[in-house]
Amino acid sequence: MTTPQSIQVSVLPWVPPIIQGLVRDLRVRWALEEAGWPYSEHVVDSGDQASASYRALQPFGQVPAFQSDELTLFESGAIVLHIAERSPALMPQEPAARSEMITWMFGALNSVEPPIMMFNILDMVYQGPKGDDVKALKRWIVGWVESRLDTLESVLEGKDYVLGRFTAADVLLATVLRILRDTDFVETRPALKAYQRRCEARPAFQKALADHLANFAKHAPPGAS
Amino acid sequence: MTTPQSIQVSVLPWVPPIIQGLVRDLRVRWALEEAGWPYSEHVVDSGDQASASYRALQPFGQVPAFQSDELTLFESGAIVLHIAERSPALMPQEPAARSEMITWMFGALNSVEPPIMMFNILDMVYQGPKGDDVKALKRWIVGWVESRLDTLESVLEGKDYVLGRFTAADVLLATVLRILRDTDFVETRPALKAYQRRCEARPAFQKALADHLANFAKHAPPGAS
Repeated sequence: MTTPQSIQVSVLPWVPPIIQGLVRDLRVRWALEEAGWPYSEHVVDSGDQASASYRALQPFGQVPAFQSDELTLFESGAIVLHIAERSPALMPQEPAARSEMITWMFGALNSVEPPIMMFNILDMVYQGPKGDDVKALKRWIVGWVESRLDTLESVLEGKDYVLGRFTAADVLLATVLRILRDTDFVETRPALKAYQRRCEARPAFQKALADHLANFAKHAPPGAS
Repeated sequence: MTTPQSIQVSVLPWVPPIIQGLVRDLRVRWALEEAGWPYSEHVVDSGDQASASYRALQPFGQVPAFQSDELTLFESGAIVLHIAERSPALMPQEPAARSEMITWMFGALNSVEPPIMMFNILDMVYQGPKGDDVKALKRWIVGWVESRLDTLESVLEGKDYVLGRFTAADVLLATVLRILRDTDFVETRPALKAYQRRCEARPAFQKALADHLANFAKHAPPGAS
């Protein structure tokens, strides 16, 4: 299978430091580095995000979108799966293992990420009043996050990666866990903490993160980082 | 490609009427009916959900899990994709259309469902105090849901299904929209409303829904429906 040519990944020019390192183009950059596929950045500023031409590429106006000489795609999960299906570095070839990888890709994005996303909204994104009723709701959501993480902790016990070997499922799981970087949810679970460090120590992750941050640094507004 | 044999889908014996017709085994039943694959129900009661043997099949203790003579799987998205990859009724064969279908499968579960899940939790699932601050948060979430639905409304304008023809992406999108059945989010968007009715009018959906409800009726506690 030949490597697709002229790959472009859409990225935002700059975001505040609190979400630098979390924007979802990082997932795609990481998968591309693991696969060894060269790509360039398609910088989409906030005005362009709502434009008809960008919406034709990414209907929700989000990043990342992916373009190559073969096709256009959006949704980080779908893009990472597309890369994995063409790269043995990211996907085992046996049908049962491939299905297990896809199971954990959906698991990362539909069972683990939604409670974490909801926690993150309440903790950081949502700027409205947070009285006692919102605090009680947040405790309920914390319980939901913890139940998912406790499951993951037991699944990862004694394994280097969720399937044993590194796969695209780890790209999604590790970047979902990363949303919790300013909390102690992961830190207090030894198998999860070791897993996340192992994933983030990979040279492909480090290269992807450096490029992700370098793009923001290049476009930072005066006085920002 | 031969049809897998001895398919079992895990289901709950009974849930309250407010969530009957929404539990995720419905997605898998629907895909199996579209594919024409026979299956049987593996009824998992609430005690079994937390058991080690069920957790080995579905680590989060949820339904549905899928078993066949070939493999075991969990996550409704992964199961529906597994069925689609072996059934032309659910998936186009051209690589670009297949990728577009997978994009919308992830889109349904990672861009559309999380805000809807969050709305549903605040509206129905969460039973804690809902004072003015939670009400303000709910309005914020309503805005998030609406932005996703407005995008879908424009994507579906003039189309019967999200890819034009029916695919596995519609199984996920339509069942995600169905979570909003007691609200007017879908009713007030003509293309979305027509789309959902078109999807739900399919004989395979009707059969899946009837079997999903019949299982609950069979196991209803005395005096419940």
